[in-house]
Amino acid sequence: TQAHTNTHTLCSTSCSSPCYTLGFLQKNNSLGEEGRLSGALSERQKNLFTCENSDRDVRFRRTETDFSNMFRKLLFSSCWNLWTSLPTISGRRLTVPPRSLTSTIRTSYWRAWRASTSSYLTSLSPLNKSSWTAGTRSSTAFTYEIAPVFVLMEQLTLKKMREMIGWPSGEGDGIFSPGGAISNMYSVMIARYKYFPDVKTKGMSAAPRLVLFTSEHSHYSIKKAGAALGFGSENVVLLSTDERGRVIPSDLEAKILDVKQKGYHPLFVNATAGSTVYGAFDPINEIADICEKYNMWLHVDGAWGGGLLMSRKHRHKFSGVERANSVTWNPHKMMGVPLQCSAILVREKGILSGCNSMCAGYLFQPDKQYDVSFDTGDKAIQCGRHVDIFKFWLMWKAKGTIGFEQHIDRCLDLSQYLYEKIRNREGYEMVFQGVPQHTNVCFWYIPPSLRGMDPNSQEYREKLHKVAPKIKALMMESGTTMVGYQPQGQKVNFFRMVISNPAALQSDIDFLIDEIERLGHGL
Amino acid sequence: TQAHTNTHTLCSTSCSSPCYTLGFLQKNNSLGEEGRLSGALSERQKNLFTCENSDRDVRFRRTETDFSNMFRKLLFSSCWNLWTSLPTISGRRLTVPPRSLTSTIRTSYWRAWRASTSSYLTSLSPLNKSSWTAGTRSSTAFTYEIAPVFVLMEQLTLKKMREMIGWPSGEGDGIFSPGGAISNMYSVMIARYKYFPDVKTKGMSAAPRLVLFTSEHSHYSIKKAGAALGFGSENVVLLSTDERGRVIPSDLEAKILDVKQKGYHPLFVNATAGSTVYGAFDPINEIADICEKYNMWLHVDGAWGGGLLMSRKHRHKFSGVERANSVTWNPHKMMGVPLQCSAILVREKGILSGCNSMCAGYLFQPDKQYDVSFDTGDKAIQCGRHVDIFKFWLMWKAKGTIGFEQHIDRCLDLSQYLYEKIRNREGYEMVFQGVPQHTNVCFWYIPPSLRGMDPNSQEYREKLHKVAPKIKALMMESGTTMVGYQPQGQKVNFFRMVISNPAALQSDIDFLIDEIERLGHGL
Repeated sequence: TQAHTNTHTLCSTSCSSPCYTLGFLQKNNSLGEEGRLSGALSERQKNLFTCENSDRDVRFRRTETDFSNMFRKLLFSSCWNLWTSLPTISGRRLTVPPRSLTSTIRTSYWRAWRASTSSYLTSLSPLNKSSWTAGTRSSTAFTYEIAPVFVLMEQLTLKKMREMIGWPSGEGDGIFSPGGAISNMYSVMIARYKYFPDVKTKGMSAAPRLVLFTSEHSHYSIKKAGAALGFGSENVVLLSTDERGRVIPSDLEAKILDVKQKGYHPLFVNATAGSTVYGAFDPINEIADICEKYNMWLHVDGAWGGGLLMSRKHRHKFSGVERANSVTWNPHKMMGVPLQCSAILVREKGILSGCNSMCAGYLFQPDKQYDVSFDTGDKAIQCGRHVDIFKFWLMWKAKGTIGFEQHIDRCLDLSQYLYEKIRNREGYEMVFQGVPQHTNVCFWYIPPSLRGMDPNSQEYREKLHKVAPKIKALMMESGTTMVGYQPQGQKVNFFRMVISNPAALQSDIDFLIDEIERLGHGL
Repeated sequence: TQAHTNTHTLCSTSCSSPCYTLGFLQKNNSLGEEGRLSGALSERQKNLFTCENSDRDVRFRRTETDFSNMFRKLLFSSCWNLWTSLPTISGRRLTVPPRSLTSTIRTSYWRAWRASTSSYLTSLSPLNKSSWTAGTRSSTAFTYEIAPVFVLMEQLTLKKMREMIGWPSGEGDGIFSPGGAISNMYSVMIARYKYFPDVKTKGMSAAPRLVLFTSEHSHYSIKKAGAALGFGSENVVLLSTDERGRVIPSDLEAKILDVKQKGYHPLFVNATAGSTVYGAFDPINEIADICEKYNMWLHVDGAWGGGLLMSRKHRHKFSGVERANSVTWNPHKMMGVPLQCSAILVREKGILSGCNSMCAGYLFQPDKQYDVSFDTGDKAIQCGRHVDIFKFWLMWKAKGTIGFEQHIDRCLDLSQYLYEKIRNREGYEMVFQGVPQHTNVCFWYIPPSLRGMDPNSQEYREKLHKVAPKIKALMMESGTTMVGYQPQGQKVNFFRMVISNPAALQSDIDFLIDEIERLGHGL
């Protein structure tokens, strides 16, 4: 039984959800994996991954048997399990009993299709009935009756993600949104609703001048949200970072005090977990201390870095994330889920609905024949939503948490290979020193004609600024590969290599460097 | 040549874009169609669909030959044509010449994949390479270099849609968004930016108290936008409607005057073209008169009704839409494009970018080797965007404008069949009188036990209120069909049948009525 227990505890930060925790691990259930995994855990990691309650272990084992023996060879057993386990989740019986496994899988799709001849405005065309996957492209995650399986998949997967964050029992709120920018926008909206709920009905005049804080290296969506939601982009204060692109906590505190002195209200801090350019992780624990001190909302933008929560080797970079009020996590980035798949996860239950619901009677009828808390539409700023969950759910079932971990670790290993290859190589200079925190490797390639020049001279800077755009243009003309570049602050254009495809090989990295040198040598 | 000219002019409100106007019509190019189409046009419709400039006709004919003879049997000729016609669109040569038709089609996908090992955070997994369609699910409509074909498809399709609206030469702005609610939100943001641009940087305190107007029958997303964007839902004034659910223009004017008297600023009117419940079309021309008088932004929410712009028989319901400042149109509703596919179309060019751009240097480098006006990412509130255009583009190529017209007309015919069937049938009562404007047919089914009761009595109303929910629950238990219901204002729960699937048959309608009577007869 010890082996069993280890297996369960690896991907769950809490043990309250036996009926599906196991499902996520099923794929990598071999003893060999277990042995490896029960090995090198630090004490802190053990706390994160271990069930303290032995009583729960018993439930786990029983559930495992129930779950894994039923249809374990069927890809879609998850749907069936979801369905049959629903009464234990909702405490109520279903009004729509499925007739068979197949019908269960097809239920969401079938409903959407029948509905297309009846009362739902989103349509399905005969063109799209060619495969069952089409169902996920045409259904809408909106009410339980229209997309019962997908609504449940969302609820359970969001809970699972909250468990990975470390919120007790995976409790809280959340929704899948059309991308990280919208998820970040949600976080700002919810923060405002939490502290100034009257803004929902009365507008921004019901609050003092509110200020948001985010790193100068953070994603521009925080600023966009500030502009869109009526704060004004000038009320988004940018925080200074250290040489690795991480927020300097003392700068945050100084800027909060400055804002308070002006009579404004510091509302919200965004800590970036995996910045776009440097891949930097802001120090969440230090930022959380400051947020607690000044009673502010802490959001963690893990759109890019979120995948590292899946890796025992790298998740320490998220240390303190369980103290956040909300987290953005995009499985469509590092984890390889096809666009779009982004989640906004919130620690406080019910607040999304409080913030966004308008209770339109024609859409959300309270007198339905099932538990209408499964109707998720009203907590979104959208109405119908594309079903983004199914592909993620299937990938998680197919790869397991351990499969995702291997994916993440592999990408980080590859980026470290690139880093090691170029950090002392002639003609390269790193933009920041040390092993990158994420897979972002930032560097200049210096053509022979520039080597030996005074690196502080204006002429050198101007010439170097043009190197990366020129090499990229030559790459596009050759059609062999493409790598992005950008300036950052005072730093002239540099290459930023990012690896999110675990199928890439070291030879691909070698090829990239060869191409840079082939195309850039004569510049 | 007369036949040719007729063919071209049918689906274009302007003739400035010969290189692709024809493509949209190609499918239905037969003489028979031409004959039918050149027939029954009213004078007004002729104006909408006719090229006045005979010089242009010559260009049309030449272009048609070029276009249709090249790869007319290839489904994907559109991509090739787009690509080769690009120099005439952008006035510049491409930096990335495609090597063959196949490579052209695959270019966007290939780039995204190569990019997944280089510098773009959105990932592609090997799991998803099984088909070319996967490319559209994993690419991102963001910059031209990442998704060149899709970016061009978006631009041309948006232009085409603006032509259907009737804006001169299809000029203007627009973007595909993740649904009608977000499109409507865009319209409010742009209106605010147009009249109070400082709100972008300084927040809502830079403007007076702003008020939005929308019908009491309109979609709740206008109210959600008001709450989210900092106006406050109380500053969304609901307009009274007539018995068919259409805004009463005099009520709008009275409420504008009331708001002005209070010292607030009337900013924005939403006219619904195809309301959710009644399928009502607000009188756009009368509302436009009032908007012009008071210098307000006019938005038309055609999320549900937009498809009717494709139908010469029904587009008169949109009369005046060319006077709108912005229009929401969801091809994923009435037109059968799989979810998600929604467009916000704007009459003023460049305003989307002005409203939303943050010019993040690390994402949108001005020193690229191509015309960066093709990088659409910064005018969105999203960052990466799901590619929603490809399926719509393919459907339009496959069906043609005339195919969409037939689709729309067929659905409206079916709903009229339902209307005619039940309007005098025993046991039915229509919620509003007259042929529905859209496919929404709203009715009560009155079980025999309620017939003959005083329809104004409280007992009757209470009993009738429960009939639709009960029948729907029985339908869900039977698993045969499903039809939605809702109350509206003082009206107790009624059924709302909507038809958007042109493959439905009259026998499906008959079946629905049979089911209602079978399940409801004994209530």
